Amino acid sequence: MPAEHSLFIPIILGTTRQGRESEHVAHLVFEQAKKRAGVDVELVDVRELPMRLDDAGEQMKDPKFSATIERCDGLVIVTPEYNHGYPGLLKHALDMNLKEYIHKAVGICGVSAGAVGGARVIENLLPVLRELGLVTIFEDVNFGKVGTLFDERGRLLDENYVRRVDKFLDELIWMARVLRHGRENIAPV
Amino acid sequence: MPAEHSLFIPIILGTTRQGRESEHVAHLVFEQAKKRAGVDVELVDVRELPMRLDDAGEQMKDPKFSATIERCDGLVIVTPEYNHGYPGLLKHALDMNLKEYIHKAVGICGVSAGAVGGARVIENLLPVLRELGLVTIFEDVNFGKVGTLFDERGRLLDENYVRRVDKFLDELIWMARVLRHGRENIAPV
Amino acid sequence: MPAEHSLFIPIILGTTRQGRESEHVAHLVFEQAKKRAGVDVELVDVRELPMRLDDAGEQMKDPKFSATIERCDGLVIVTPEYNHGYPGLLKHALDMNLKEYIHKAVGICGVSAGAVGGARVIENLLPVLRELGLVTIFEDVNFGKVGTLFDERGRLLDENYVRRVDKFLDELIWMARVLRHGRENIAPV
Amino acid sequence: MPAEHSLFIPIILGTTRQGRESEHVAHLVFEQAKKRAGVDVELVDVRELPMRLDDAGEQMKDPKFSATIERCDGLVIVTPEYNHGYPGLLKHALDMNLKEYIHKAVGICGVSAGAVGGARVIENLLPVLRELGLVTIFEDVNFGKVGTLFDERGRLLDENYVRRVDKFLDELIWMARVLRHGRENIAPV
Repeated sequence: MPAEHSLFIPIILGTTRQGRESEHVAHLVFEQAKKRAGVDVELVDVRELPMRLDDAGEQMKDPKFSATIERCDGLVIVTPEYNHGYPGLLKHALDMNLKEYIHKAVGICGVSAGAVGGARVIENLLPVLRELGLVTIFEDVNFGKVGTLFDERGRLLDENYVRRVDKFLDELIWMARVLRHGRENIAPV
Repeated sequence: MPAEHSLFIPIILGTTRQGRESEHVAHLVFEQAKKRAGVDVELVDVRELPMRLDDAGEQMKDPKFSATIERCDGLVIVTPEYNHGYPGLLKHALDMNLKEYIHKAVGICGVSAGAVGGARVIENLLPVLRELGLVTIFEDVNFGKVGTLFDERGRLLDENYVRRVDKFLDELIWMARVLRHGRENIAPV
Repeated sequence: MPAEHSLFIPIILGTTRQGRESEHVAHLVFEQAKKRAGVDVELVDVRELPMRLDDAGEQMKDPKFSATIERCDGLVIVTPEYNHGYPGLLKHALDMNLKEYIHKAVGICGVSAGAVGGARVIENLLPVLRELGLVTIFEDVNFGKVGTLFDERGRLLDENYVRRVDKFLDELIWMARVLRHGRENIAPV
Repeated sequence: MPAEHSLFIPIILGTTRQGRESEHVAHLVFEQAKKRAGVDVELVDVRELPMRLDDAGEQMKDPKFSATIERCDGLVIVTPEYNHGYPGLLKHALDMNLKEYIHKAVGICGVSAGAVGGARVIENLLPVLRELGLVTIFEDVNFGKVGTLFDERGRLLDENYVRRVDKFLDELIWMARVLRHGRENIAPV
């Protein structure tokens, strides 16, 4: 019974920067998602992907990453905002796959040092995610002033974010479930 | 049996400009959509909506337009590109509703005098449509050099667009059906 | 001596919504700009412009508004964020002019009820302003949680915004001056 | 006499993909720019920049690339459109510098296999370039159906593009000159 299968929702940590604060955010989302019954999670660290500096696109495809995307029902992208846009290596990674994304759900957690909480990088990513065939949910989490949200060991200092992440995951899981039903049961027109 | 119900997919003609060429496009999409079994269509002309110049947003809500959106399963937006953005009155109209859009599908037909076929207005609309709770499909139709595509009576001169509109409608109808199943059968998380 | 002329910098209040909070913001910017030596200001209220609901674009041009834009050296746009985009009637107004904007400076004050302070509407406006020929400066003011920033009479409650507006005006005035020198003294290539 | 100095306008080839067609475009723009009196050009190939896959941002700064940007008066970015967004490694490269870009001009040549000629990647780059302090001119060149525009040796097959590149360079040079005058002669406010 397909509706009973676990959903697979990888969390992509979208920056390779030394000293990245988004790592705490990715771990928080990972831990919250792991608590959900019927949801399998995995952390995909863009820093660990075997990418190259002299190529781009599908011809640089990594079999393991492609299999993860192929198998997933939804994605979380945790991304800082660099100069109002997405990190280059996040895009470099996303561009390695193509058909693997189609008709799956994605939610974005934006991270920034200032008050906007990555609101701009989320907008900047929308056209890309749509073209990949992903459905971006309309719940985001904005981690603003990220430097004040976690202690040195990465423990969350503001419990409001647990609630926000949970609400975000609710919507993402719902959409992932709906689209999976569609992929498995509703014939193309 | 909900899956057997007709889908309701209004087509929004998104400009009020005198001399608008998008009108031909909207009629073409309307006629193609009308041919689909199990799809009810309606043309919503932004020029006919009772809007005001001294207000904005939900407080300007029109009961008839709201009921149309409330009842719909998907939308087509036919929009010209004005200065790389969306027509003001299209946005003025869209902003009148809110919860009516949630978890419904939308597809965009971009129109422009030049070669890009409204590619930029489509990108410009994405953040708005997402915030409204709509899911924008990843098929578009780009009506470039629109002045050459129809004769004086609005008859299509380039038959390739029939195929393009049909492919676009296939995807829109699939997504409308999938989301409708979700709204009706899959409980919020 | 052109460099000695006053700069003319109108402030556009970009929403017509009844109950708009951006009005306080526009007045604040107007008052701060008025204090600058060599700067003439004027408040342009989109609600006061003679627009129509059955047309769009340059063919709806208003001679007074066009003359204001023609004469200006820079613009401030004060805009709320409606569903992550710009107010429809702001765009309807902007689209009425065209060549009048070329090679002039513009700065944006974003307004929103939430924490992001209109950060998203600013991004949404960028392609439009560029196409009009305007140069958007890279200083913004984000009026977040606007409902808490002014008292009932419109008096500012958080003095930090005076400093932010002043910094924004510094950059806008510099860019307006630079572009004016260019328009008046540097021949097209 | 500053106004007599040569302008320095590097051309950034913004993709590292094996088989990139943007290379022909970059060479065309380079050759056309080189013909201009008073303009020094240089080709910056993102593939040649010493970047890393385990870091990001200014902490990855390359002295030579930074010096080029520091010295420049304007930039051309030649960029393909990958999934409606910018190539990851173009962004990775741009993010290495910061203050070096301020108050300089930039123009974008968009490249794509389809008809839109990179129109979408240009829109996607605008918020990033603005945040860097660059002024994006409102002339673009759209190299659509790029696979048909050059022969195997990279010779241009459609002479219309010479005229388009020249018009684009006219505007870029004008803006570079205007902003340079501003940087050198007009005091910050």
